[in-house]
Amino acid sequence: MDKNSVGLVKTKYVTFKDDFYFESGRILSPITVAYETYGKLNKEKNNAILICHALTGSAHAAGYNSPDDQKPGWWDGMIGPGKAFDTDKYFIICSNFLGSCYGTTGPASVDPSTGKPYGLKFPVFTVKDMVKLQKKLIDYLGIEKLLCVAGGSMGGMQALEWAVTFPEKTNSIIPIATAGRITPMAIAFNTIGRFAIMKDPNWMNGDYYGKAFPRDGLAIARMAGHITYMSDKSFHKKFGRRYATFGGIYDFFGYFEVENYLKYNGYKFTERFDANCYLYIIKAMDIFDLSYGYGSFEEAVGRISADTLFITFTSDFLFPSYQTEEIVNIMKSHGKKPEWVDIESDYGHDAFLLEFDTQAAYIKEFLDNVYKKVAG
Amino acid sequence: MDKNSVGLVKTKYVTFKDDFYFESGRILSPITVAYETYGKLNKEKNNAILICHALTGSAHAAGYNSPDDQKPGWWDGMIGPGKAFDTDKYFIICSNFLGSCYGTTGPASVDPSTGKPYGLKFPVFTVKDMVKLQKKLIDYLGIEKLLCVAGGSMGGMQALEWAVTFPEKTNSIIPIATAGRITPMAIAFNTIGRFAIMKDPNWMNGDYYGKAFPRDGLAIARMAGHITYMSDKSFHKKFGRRYATFGGIYDFFGYFEVENYLKYNGYKFTERFDANCYLYIIKAMDIFDLSYGYGSFEEAVGRISADTLFITFTSDFLFPSYQTEEIVNIMKSHGKKPEWVDIESDYGHDAFLLEFDTQAAYIKEFLDNVYKKVAG
Repeated sequence: MDKNSVGLVKTKYVTFKDDFYFESGRILSPITVAYETYGKLNKEKNNAILICHALTGSAHAAGYNSPDDQKPGWWDGMIGPGKAFDTDKYFIICSNFLGSCYGTTGPASVDPSTGKPYGLKFPVFTVKDMVKLQKKLIDYLGIEKLLCVAGGSMGGMQALEWAVTFPEKTNSIIPIATAGRITPMAIAFNTIGRFAIMKDPNWMNGDYYGKAFPRDGLAIARMAGHITYMSDKSFHKKFGRRYATFGGIYDFFGYFEVENYLKYNGYKFTERFDANCYLYIIKAMDIFDLSYGYGSFEEAVGRISADTLFITFTSDFLFPSYQTEEIVNIMKSHGKKPEWVDIESDYGHDAFLLEFDTQAAYIKEFLDNVYKKVAG
Repeated sequence: MDKNSVGLVKTKYVTFKDDFYFESGRILSPITVAYETYGKLNKEKNNAILICHALTGSAHAAGYNSPDDQKPGWWDGMIGPGKAFDTDKYFIICSNFLGSCYGTTGPASVDPSTGKPYGLKFPVFTVKDMVKLQKKLIDYLGIEKLLCVAGGSMGGMQALEWAVTFPEKTNSIIPIATAGRITPMAIAFNTIGRFAIMKDPNWMNGDYYGKAFPRDGLAIARMAGHITYMSDKSFHKKFGRRYATFGGIYDFFGYFEVENYLKYNGYKFTERFDANCYLYIIKAMDIFDLSYGYGSFEEAVGRISADTLFITFTSDFLFPSYQTEEIVNIMKSHGKKPEWVDIESDYGHDAFLLEFDTQAAYIKEFLDNVYKKVAG
């Protein structure tokens, strides 16, 4: 464990017993939230930063849950002493979002009224629902106003939603590699995953708990997702056209290294993620649209009063930079001064999980400035 | 039927009874080839153009097979009197390639030794094998040297292979929206399709004939393919984020128009194509590499002596223009003068099936010049 690690951390849990109203009108209780914190909340309680995770992430963003852990949290390169999100200065909170399967209540959780997992009885939830549950956690922690909400991909959607839905509750946001609504092409990729899972005979309309798991379907969904996380260039660099099997190119079941990688990671994913949760979460991603409930996309974006640092990556074709540019232009037309950096990178969408140093430079300076304004 | 149609055409068949040697060393006989011709072969037999089809195409490139046909052949906009491939001047041949399921022998054809479809007993074939079978057809038609070989996507691969393998057999080639070897990212997309089919319980290791068809798997494969045929812009233009279902955005089974389209076309495809053929053909696409059998890619491309017109499309991310640029540069370094046009289009890879006028202008002039050189 290096000296810049937050070290050993424990995931905490809180259960809210009052009724939670979903955007759809559905009502659910109780709801448990899994979360971790790093660094210390100061006595003014004005140094708290909420980190929001992406599609398949968890509350475990940094450090190690046990001394035996092979890998640290999913954004360990960004969170720790002296890192982009500096735990010597800030109090960092990361919670597993509503509907996921890492401790927060979701479709794979047990419905106390039946003693069985919710499955498809779970309400369809939205990014706004995730954010509303995060706000309950922040209230519970006694934080009046966050210093910042930050996240990449679906985490960036949550950051945007915080700024639009609760403009009085955060001083700043850092939406990374994200969009105010995804493109139809991104929906198309999710469609492949959705079909692959739903057509897996083991899926059985979501009622597979305690029976065979729809492993093939979820693996294929992950493989399709994986393509969108990379870029043409990163595929070239990582795999080229290297062939992986002894049988050679005329072997019907032979395969290239890129296939081997996709397969390996696809099936590995099925050991750590629930198929129904995946379906619900990609649905939340598809239907996420800042403009819902407002007159227009422009009107919704116009509500953002938080200081804003947008980060995009040039080779990200899942959340292309032009989508952030659109938001930036709307904000400017409302007299705001959003900051935006389009980082040159070959990593594609995955860059937000890999480009630590390039992001850190911008994030540190941005947070410094926001904190100075807030703390004086 | 408009005056620029080639009118009613009949698919013809020829069966070669001698042993056909595959690149893999496997041997097969007999092999039937389905083909169509449009226009007239002149008495010098120097006006023949071979059109090569793409992944799921057929010999039926132009005109109508019956007066009741709702749609003409797959490249009708390009082939006919006065069109890019002008049937008033040229004799156009299009054959269904080896291993497909539209009349030419392939995995779904009946193995005369067993009376049952070959299935996975069919040899793995390559683009070179396709081209060798096309050459048998050309020989059979009494044509010494083709005026041109042209095609888009996998059809362009065949055109390139003709020029590399049989430089003495064609005066020119027009490879469109293609590559000398596909990118690892393109292989990744084929991997999704391959897994979706192979994991469909109805696939049964390819032995599904006379039983349930692996419909879901093939539909998902087609859906994944469809994404690669379009572009971010064409997705925006065609679908936007329009929602398609009555149940609204909180309906778990609700969907966007783009999903509806992918699903409809995915399943429609299963009514016209065989799953094993699809697997074999995407394998041929994956393993296609001009350099196989030569010292290097450069050496293989250096063999091209035919006059060459390359066409690419700016928004094609499946066969990106830079792959053609690489070939063009190699040819130039060998003192050749390839022509190359990178057509500005939002249609993505599909552009070769949609951009008739833009392509026609270049093709007509190119063929005029080649024909003048050949016929004097």
